[in-house]
Amino acid sequence: MNEIGIVERIRQMAEVSTQHARVRAPHLILGIGDDCAIFRPRDGEDLLFTTDQMIEDVHFRSTHKAAMIGERALARSLSDIAAMGGEPRFCLVALATPEKNEKWIEAFYRGLLRLAKRTGTVPAGGDLAHSGNDKTHCDVMVCGAVKRGRALRRDGARVGDAIFVSGRLGKPWDRKIEPRLALGQSLVGRATACIDLSDGLSLDLYRLCVASGVAAEIDRVPVVRGATVERALHGGEDYELLFTLPAKARTLAGTTRIGTVVRGSPGEMMFLGRRLEPRGYDHFK
Amino acid sequence: MNEIGIVERIRQMAEVSTQHARVRAPHLILGIGDDCAIFRPRDGEDLLFTTDQMIEDVHFRSTHKAAMIGERALARSLSDIAAMGGEPRFCLVALATPEKNEKWIEAFYRGLLRLAKRTGTVPAGGDLAHSGNDKTHCDVMVCGAVKRGRALRRDGARVGDAIFVSGRLGKPWDRKIEPRLALGQSLVGRATACIDLSDGLSLDLYRLCVASGVAAEIDRVPVVRGATVERALHGGEDYELLFTLPAKARTLAGTTRIGTVVRGSPGEMMFLGRRLEPRGYDHFK
Repeated sequence: MNEIGIVERIRQMAEVSTQHARVRAPHLILGIGDDCAIFRPRDGEDLLFTTDQMIEDVHFRSTHKAAMIGERALARSLSDIAAMGGEPRFCLVALATPEKNEKWIEAFYRGLLRLAKRTGTVPAGGDLAHSGNDKTHCDVMVCGAVKRGRALRRDGARVGDAIFVSGRLGKPWDRKIEPRLALGQSLVGRATACIDLSDGLSLDLYRLCVASGVAAEIDRVPVVRGATVERALHGGEDYELLFTLPAKARTLAGTTRIGTVVRGSPGEMMFLGRRLEPRGYDHFK
Repeated sequence: MNEIGIVERIRQMAEVSTQHARVRAPHLILGIGDDCAIFRPRDGEDLLFTTDQMIEDVHFRSTHKAAMIGERALARSLSDIAAMGGEPRFCLVALATPEKNEKWIEAFYRGLLRLAKRTGTVPAGGDLAHSGNDKTHCDVMVCGAVKRGRALRRDGARVGDAIFVSGRLGKPWDRKIEPRLALGQSLVGRATACIDLSDGLSLDLYRLCVASGVAAEIDRVPVVRGATVERALHGGEDYELLFTLPAKARTLAGTTRIGTVVRGSPGEMMFLGRRLEPRGYDHFK
């Protein structure tokens, strides 16, 4: 099968799998099959954009299943939409792979489209290329929407706010990512700041604190069964939400209060009275 | 320099280089530095989205200059925006590179930002990663805008329309790409169909004809000095516009009438009386 044939096959799979989603995203005027996708925004909405790469030997191994890689590639970007309180609208998928076998490409899209359907994310286009070496590389861009001026940001935490995380931290890589879209949407108008945990609690909390110009004191971390506190603090594959609420706000179901925003040098963090350094995953360290 | 430092450096470069562009794109509420970029659409506009990969050993070689690679990566996506008649708004850049040397990354962005500034494309975010092997890979997503319902598409060519291309075809790879944004915008409301020449005239004309359900007869091709007609027909690095106008429309400056849309099997093409096969660049042939 040649490139035209493969793209046509992906287009058909995308249509079948998103007939339900399309009802929820009628504003995609033109999807896969032209130079650009055409999207007609609704009045009174801001749009959110994020893009995340999944690279063989960095974010996954060749032994992982293609469907799981595809699902995870979309899940990582959806986690960013969740962190801003958004509702997903559509995605663009760029895939470069050495596999000339269309079965691998199909399985990758099958995994991705399954999550797309479940979250109302319409596949609107992308780019398919040969990778030029023996490694697979993909990049998924997602557009989400939120009421005008209501997006959650990482720069609004205030001294005295309580700090929360969703779920438990320190998950192993092969645990499915469940983007916290419903939680993020429920935080709109309530949370003062929010970020997703994509590089580890210590590094992402550091980013939130620097953006907000505050310091933080952490006194507990919810840990998944089998993981160490060290991994929960510095591991990098959790995709939970880290957010701040006014001091008197009640704890939401499925979340844990882990500490307090304090006055201090921006980005300074303490864990149980000891200095906590940002040591999450850094691509260029 | 670590990842936080490199991203901060790119953010500063982007701000300095787009102060002018920002005036033209005040609707980017939040750019580089949060989980997502926030964009506030204007009333009465449709948005256009495209993404294109540039891969080492497929689209460029390691001997090419970083600034040229960066500029070309953005130019290829801008060419898609031009083909739909759009005005560029912002871009997201995903870059995976083995170079730990920030000088290479900086030069890549310098080239990309130079073209971004010149075309009013605001850099709004992206993703930076280590490539996991010795190859560089980038993916540039561009958002453009066009008046509601006025985007140029590839599916509107009608029997009897005249077929045009801009510029001359068969360019060598190292010729600068100049995205035909002004021409594309001037075709809105005039052209019946439009596509950019990214994979060679024969393949892109085939795509336009299939989408429109028509056939085509070509009787001439404008060739750049030093190139063959064969290369002009099937070469893949032109990034000119291929478009159709009603039969009686006048020829626009800088464009050449190359043939006519005819009745026939969708995608059937003739060149000077002989069958023309779609033989442009196919990643999976």
